[in-house]
Amino acid sequence: MIPDMAILPIDGGRYGTDKMKEIFDDQKKITYQLEIEAAVALSQAEIGMVPRDAAANISKMARSGKITVKRVKQLESKSDHDTAALVEALSELCKPSAKPWIHYGLTSNDLVDTSNSLQIRDTLRIIEPKVARLALILSEQAVKYKALPAVGRTHGQHASIISFGLKFANWALEMSTHVQRIEELKKRVLICKTLGVVGTGSLMGAKALEVQKRVAKKLELYPADVTTQVVARERYAELVFYMALIGSTLEKIAVEIRNLQRTEIGEVAESFKKGQMGSSAVPVKRNPVKSERVTSLSKLLRSQISVAFENIPLWHERDLTNSANERFIIPTGAILLDEMLETMTRIVGSLFVNQDRIRQNLEITRGQIFAEFVLDAMIQKGVPRFEAYRDIQRVAFASSEDGTDFRDAVRNDKAFSSHLTDQEIDEIFVPENHLGASFDIIKNVSTKIRGLCSKFS
Amino acid sequence: MIPDMAILPIDGGRYGTDKMKEIFDDQKKITYQLEIEAAVALSQAEIGMVPRDAAANISKMARSGKITVKRVKQLESKSDHDTAALVEALSELCKPSAKPWIHYGLTSNDLVDTSNSLQIRDTLRIIEPKVARLALILSEQAVKYKALPAVGRTHGQHASIISFGLKFANWALEMSTHVQRIEELKKRVLICKTLGVVGTGSLMGAKALEVQKRVAKKLELYPADVTTQVVARERYAELVFYMALIGSTLEKIAVEIRNLQRTEIGEVAESFKKGQMGSSAVPVKRNPVKSERVTSLSKLLRSQISVAFENIPLWHERDLTNSANERFIIPTGAILLDEMLETMTRIVGSLFVNQDRIRQNLEITRGQIFAEFVLDAMIQKGVPRFEAYRDIQRVAFASSEDGTDFRDAVRNDKAFSSHLTDQEIDEIFVPENHLGASFDIIKNVSTKIRGLCSKFS
Amino acid sequence: MIPDMAILPIDGGRYGTDKMKEIFDDQKKITYQLEIEAAVALSQAEIGMVPRDAAANISKMARSGKITVKRVKQLESKSDHDTAALVEALSELCKPSAKPWIHYGLTSNDLVDTSNSLQIRDTLRIIEPKVARLALILSEQAVKYKALPAVGRTHGQHASIISFGLKFANWALEMSTHVQRIEELKKRVLICKTLGVVGTGSLMGAKALEVQKRVAKKLELYPADVTTQVVARERYAELVFYMALIGSTLEKIAVEIRNLQRTEIGEVAESFKKGQMGSSAVPVKRNPVKSERVTSLSKLLRSQISVAFENIPLWHERDLTNSANERFIIPTGAILLDEMLETMTRIVGSLFVNQDRIRQNLEITRGQIFAEFVLDAMIQKGVPRFEAYRDIQRVAFASSEDGTDFRDAVRNDKAFSSHLTDQEIDEIFVPENHLGASFDIIKNVSTKIRGLCSKFS
Amino acid sequence: MIPDMAILPIDGGRYGTDKMKEIFDDQKKITYQLEIEAAVALSQAEIGMVPRDAAANISKMARSGKITVKRVKQLESKSDHDTAALVEALSELCKPSAKPWIHYGLTSNDLVDTSNSLQIRDTLRIIEPKVARLALILSEQAVKYKALPAVGRTHGQHASIISFGLKFANWALEMSTHVQRIEELKKRVLICKTLGVVGTGSLMGAKALEVQKRVAKKLELYPADVTTQVVARERYAELVFYMALIGSTLEKIAVEIRNLQRTEIGEVAESFKKGQMGSSAVPVKRNPVKSERVTSLSKLLRSQISVAFENIPLWHERDLTNSANERFIIPTGAILLDEMLETMTRIVGSLFVNQDRIRQNLEITRGQIFAEFVLDAMIQKGVPRFEAYRDIQRVAFASSEDGTDFRDAVRNDKAFSSHLTDQEIDEIFVPENHLGASFDIIKNVSTKIRGLCSKFS
Repeated sequence: MIPDMAILPIDGGRYGTDKMKEIFDDQKKITYQLEIEAAVALSQAEIGMVPRDAAANISKMARSGKITVKRVKQLESKSDHDTAALVEALSELCKPSAKPWIHYGLTSNDLVDTSNSLQIRDTLRIIEPKVARLALILSEQAVKYKALPAVGRTHGQHASIISFGLKFANWALEMSTHVQRIEELKKRVLICKTLGVVGTGSLMGAKALEVQKRVAKKLELYPADVTTQVVARERYAELVFYMALIGSTLEKIAVEIRNLQRTEIGEVAESFKKGQMGSSAVPVKRNPVKSERVTSLSKLLRSQISVAFENIPLWHERDLTNSANERFIIPTGAILLDEMLETMTRIVGSLFVNQDRIRQNLEITRGQIFAEFVLDAMIQKGVPRFEAYRDIQRVAFASSEDGTDFRDAVRNDKAFSSHLTDQEIDEIFVPENHLGASFDIIKNVSTKIRGLCSKFS
Repeated sequence: MIPDMAILPIDGGRYGTDKMKEIFDDQKKITYQLEIEAAVALSQAEIGMVPRDAAANISKMARSGKITVKRVKQLESKSDHDTAALVEALSELCKPSAKPWIHYGLTSNDLVDTSNSLQIRDTLRIIEPKVARLALILSEQAVKYKALPAVGRTHGQHASIISFGLKFANWALEMSTHVQRIEELKKRVLICKTLGVVGTGSLMGAKALEVQKRVAKKLELYPADVTTQVVARERYAELVFYMALIGSTLEKIAVEIRNLQRTEIGEVAESFKKGQMGSSAVPVKRNPVKSERVTSLSKLLRSQISVAFENIPLWHERDLTNSANERFIIPTGAILLDEMLETMTRIVGSLFVNQDRIRQNLEITRGQIFAEFVLDAMIQKGVPRFEAYRDIQRVAFASSEDGTDFRDAVRNDKAFSSHLTDQEIDEIFVPENHLGASFDIIKNVSTKIRGLCSKFS
Repeated sequence: MIPDMAILPIDGGRYGTDKMKEIFDDQKKITYQLEIEAAVALSQAEIGMVPRDAAANISKMARSGKITVKRVKQLESKSDHDTAALVEALSELCKPSAKPWIHYGLTSNDLVDTSNSLQIRDTLRIIEPKVARLALILSEQAVKYKALPAVGRTHGQHASIISFGLKFANWALEMSTHVQRIEELKKRVLICKTLGVVGTGSLMGAKALEVQKRVAKKLELYPADVTTQVVARERYAELVFYMALIGSTLEKIAVEIRNLQRTEIGEVAESFKKGQMGSSAVPVKRNPVKSERVTSLSKLLRSQISVAFENIPLWHERDLTNSANERFIIPTGAILLDEMLETMTRIVGSLFVNQDRIRQNLEITRGQIFAEFVLDAMIQKGVPRFEAYRDIQRVAFASSEDGTDFRDAVRNDKAFSSHLTDQEIDEIFVPENHLGASFDIIKNVSTKIRGLCSKFS
Repeated sequence: MIPDMAILPIDGGRYGTDKMKEIFDDQKKITYQLEIEAAVALSQAEIGMVPRDAAANISKMARSGKITVKRVKQLESKSDHDTAALVEALSELCKPSAKPWIHYGLTSNDLVDTSNSLQIRDTLRIIEPKVARLALILSEQAVKYKALPAVGRTHGQHASIISFGLKFANWALEMSTHVQRIEELKKRVLICKTLGVVGTGSLMGAKALEVQKRVAKKLELYPADVTTQVVARERYAELVFYMALIGSTLEKIAVEIRNLQRTEIGEVAESFKKGQMGSSAVPVKRNPVKSERVTSLSKLLRSQISVAFENIPLWHERDLTNSANERFIIPTGAILLDEMLETMTRIVGSLFVNQDRIRQNLEITRGQIFAEFVLDAMIQKGVPRFEAYRDIQRVAFASSEDGTDFRDAVRNDKAFSSHLTDQEIDEIFVPENHLGASFDIIKNVSTKIRGLCSKFS
């Protein structure tokens, strides 16, 4: 393939880190499968199932680096069977006495499923530290901005005062929970399966479980408890789901940044590279394009879950209807999630936080954002909630229509001044007074995240 | 609503157990939310945030059973706000000195999200034992049929010999893994949140976390670490996903039963009620309608995941776009999964297994199903895999075309008879010789499942 | 079912118009199916296939209104077969000589699929005029606001000047296109099928097509060309898709309204009922809750497509795995779409458009929103695009940082003043000068929509 | 990219025809966008908006073939903006007097969306004839097998007699309906948009619509009626939906073939290439791998719909969240659908239909498959339906348990012999007597399909 002819933007180089893409390229897939052949042969030799020198020869050739994609594809063009072609390519290199013991007791899908597990193992080794690191960065931002009062918005409307750091704390905790999820997932998804055609271990008989246990250990995987020809696909649905779930947390952060970067809000901005163009027609724009890209790719990631689900009820001891689509969804999921994690880590790490705008925005409603606290002050004075509620609503709507300041309206309205002193009213309208438990929340979250994530990042 | 006017088949009574449906009916939802109001008032009184007698009055009225759906809906029709109506209905019953302390420091969504958690808590208390019990039943069936050789099919084609018990063992293990998943999920999904309008604890200040901790304990939930107005929805996606995943295992079993019950296969059959009609036009049919229903409902369950995902990136401290659809997906998911579990437990528990047909089906290919073992025998004699493979293919295709027996063809073909004695060939064609590690696999699975599931069922 | 026990919010009365819900209640479903029995009997009598007096008796009893849900459910509890129960209930009322001719040559699913078509027929008779009417209302709003310059935003950033009316014109056209789609869909989805057990017409033999044609005409449906036991489900996927697509246009409008109603933007607002509460904790808020609800329900509507798709590849002449889930997705889709159309028509019809804020928002960037037009003016003077582009970017970023007015910066910068006179520069910064082809676009759209929609609303 | 490093199986060469893939490669995309630049410049010159010689130079350079992916990517690496880089690459080649008029009045997305339309136009030119051709082939098979009686199966159970040709007729009609759908879709999806930054036509003013109309004509597209910066994405959802819907019809055929090719059924078989391997472990198998692949890819195709839907409600005059994922879903959808059409055309064209097995399978139930016709014969004799139904059920279940022939049981049972003569009973059990209206149905379908499809294939 020459670059001009690239079709999808993963192969074309637009998305994906080299390190992650390498896991899924055709050569690496062969390398994984040959590693399994080696591990099986060696394990079988250990318990006397195949001759030791045959196993030694098989593992040496499997690990020789001499088996190329090109040769395998040549052989595949004859047999229409990719795994058989790989075995044949290995067989070509082995000495005659070893040939009968290649792939002994295995079925093609033992290679496919176990090499999938190796890919997933290596994928998680890239993903998990990035998730942990992003959780820690977000946690640091939470601590950094914990004392900065900001507008809290619900329904797109100014609702109350938050600590700006809380936004980051929410994201940080969610990211750290993903580390917990990945840890719990591993035992279910990193499965080694060498139980043959229909999961009986067939040719290896009762010793099949012992072989599988040894192979699993060599490959740093978990041995399968029971399978058909394939490992049950519900675990793939779980993997694809978790990748999409991590993507959705990134999407959630991205959507918030896009909203906070709006011209009318301006509380944050993605960093903007010198020379970068915002728009071909409008020179002045600084668009949150990275966050938009994360949002866009998240939709794709999530859509893949339905594919993984439909692969679960395969017929009998297996059918092939999971095969073609898994060639897409597993690499696409891993590569795009990695891309999104990289992007979001860059966004968050270099995010421009405009503290001036954050403070100015508190003033947009001319004091109405403090309504909740006026309500509380009245309740504290013994005014029934519903009475106080209606009074606030009346005064607030009136001052909205007149364009007057809600603070002044409260001060000048008997409903309030008969219960609250001027000083009490003034105290209400100080944003720093309303951060509530934010400090403790952020401190606790920060401690928890260090506990969960430090060892992985 | 009169029965004739029912629209959806859950309210209409077609699907769902009473016990599960009760969790989600309008009256129960009010009961849950009032229990939260009680727990909050009592917790706040414990640490001196509200007067003890006010809290006592609030909790007494909240638990009085006097607040009806009817009254709340009347109040809602004025305010267009369901939670506010509930608080008002409670307020009507409380004495004046208690009124200001009702719902103190809370926002509506504290009730919504925490009552969701109570519903989910009670849902899982129904679901988890049923999952565990089904795993155990499946495991028993695995043991029962472990020594029965059966056709293993891949691509819809006869492929090799399995132990019929292996089918159940695969399903059993997958069900038991769902118990593990539910256990891991609880800490993430059963969340108590009482942190107010924008998650700062606002009016309760630094004490908000202490209140929340006490409320959580009373409600048998986990206190939230950090929230916006809402608990993050990624956990709901996880819940909906796991419900769908359990549903997909049930679907997988159902699809297999439907396939095995085919007229041409006949290895199993759903039990058939006396008087039941199979078809209005064709009197003789016994259709696997229960398994078909499980399959049908699974599609619906799975479709809900995308809804739960799109609820994750709410704007800012929350928007309302999760609200209307969660009124559908959480009850629908729980009620249908429960229905499906009940159905599948009945199917599996009373499944007719036709051992005669299972044995007869082994003969359909006239010996070709043993091809894998002929291949192995040849390899064991030192014949290169690819040579043996081609010989078997040649002989098998020829005997297919002639309609002759593959056993005879093998015996009579030099390629084989030059390597294998007649007795060796005979041994190959005995199905009981090819159960491989099935016994050990089933024993290990059975032990593992008892460990995981016995305490829940 | 008593109201307190309602579970899902359709049966509970929260969502759905009475008129639409009636189409899907249990009694109406029976009425539809009995109407089919009547039409079939009469059609068969017309061509001499069944005795005329038998047909007369069957059709009279079928249309008598005497067959109740209650009776049918009693009979179903014995046979576990709902259509058979209906036929039996009809049989109970008919005279002996007519009994053999009830349901003659039909299979249960003839009733199910054809009654689905009747429900869909009546659904579209409600939906289509509402879609057309909303298109017309939107079109009127487009004309009303065609001369109002407003901020055009891309990537959440101020980008250029639009006619505010263009927003409505885009939505209007999209709604009118849905009318076109519904018209094209009818011939594919409104199918009458009476071809019996496996689609051969079986017992009616060669005359089956003639019977079906007559039945279809009586029911105002299209006769099926060819079927299995069921009409092919790809048309249901199309219906569910189009309902979701209409829902997505409504969602698109809803998202825009939610964004434009943000506190910081304030260009529109949903009307707010007197006495309505915005928030239980924050009295002053006016939340776009209707638009949020439309957004929320749209997610649910869209999710149903995957269910409809998975019902397409039924096994052989049919399996039952479409049945249970279609009991949910068709009524839910129709009822919620109707609800959403009602809601959006109310929102748009009573939308508060704040022309002052729309004009003020043009000033937020202090002139930078006109950058595109400065670029054009420079190009018109012969300055190369990339040179002009870089100059504008330089000046704009500088004035952003200084907090100065972009107009002044342009006037005072040699790069511009050497090419443009002060008067030319002044002309650039008049918003009304930049509505481009908006008037013509809106006029054309308005004309087109009247052509497409007037006859349906 | 070197072949060994391919990641996704489209770029890796596993899936996709060259002709379709060419439409989506990076070089072709540039070619399309340059063609738009040429068409715009020429159209603007025609109405005097830009100098004629500038337009001539622009169009000449745009069509020169000298602008390479490599150069555009170099320029993009500086600006981070792919369309701007393309314009710059074009500008490099144009003479100074032409430079200001390149891309005049356009925004980047005019190129993106209109080039998408060109890709879709060319995609449909490949897809539509293949759909039409497959419909015709299926229709021919329907005619070929119209007189062959076969088992009709519902719920996986033998239900009644069909004409084997009916299976093909159902598929044929469904494919031909897709031709109808594509025809209707074109006017909505093949849109030319050159209305600039926010859809006002901005710099071109009132003449923008005239320019767009001329450009559309040159490009064989439809001019947009109204847009924001982008053409509304609901049409992309429709395109992606229709591609998936065609895919689902193919999947439906594939699932049927997989089922009919089961070892136990054996009514059809995919052709099997000489030398092809069915299984690496089991030499004798002939697996329906092509049909399985079609099934597998269909799941992927369908999953993309949700992505297209979520791209509909973009914010304001557009956001970028459709961009990254559309780079995947449009090419993937088109390329895989094309692959699936090719595959299915090959499968159907060379399908092995085993007429012997089809006839033998009619005997599996020992006459019970004729139960529907026994029922009818009894009704014709005046026996009430429910009485006859119960008698048949009784006799059939008894003969199932005894393993006796249903024909004999009917003959020997008073319930039947008292109403039917032996000759009448014999007539019932002749399969050819029960093809019903199959011949007429197939004839009509065949005629209809020729009308719809002949002109496209």
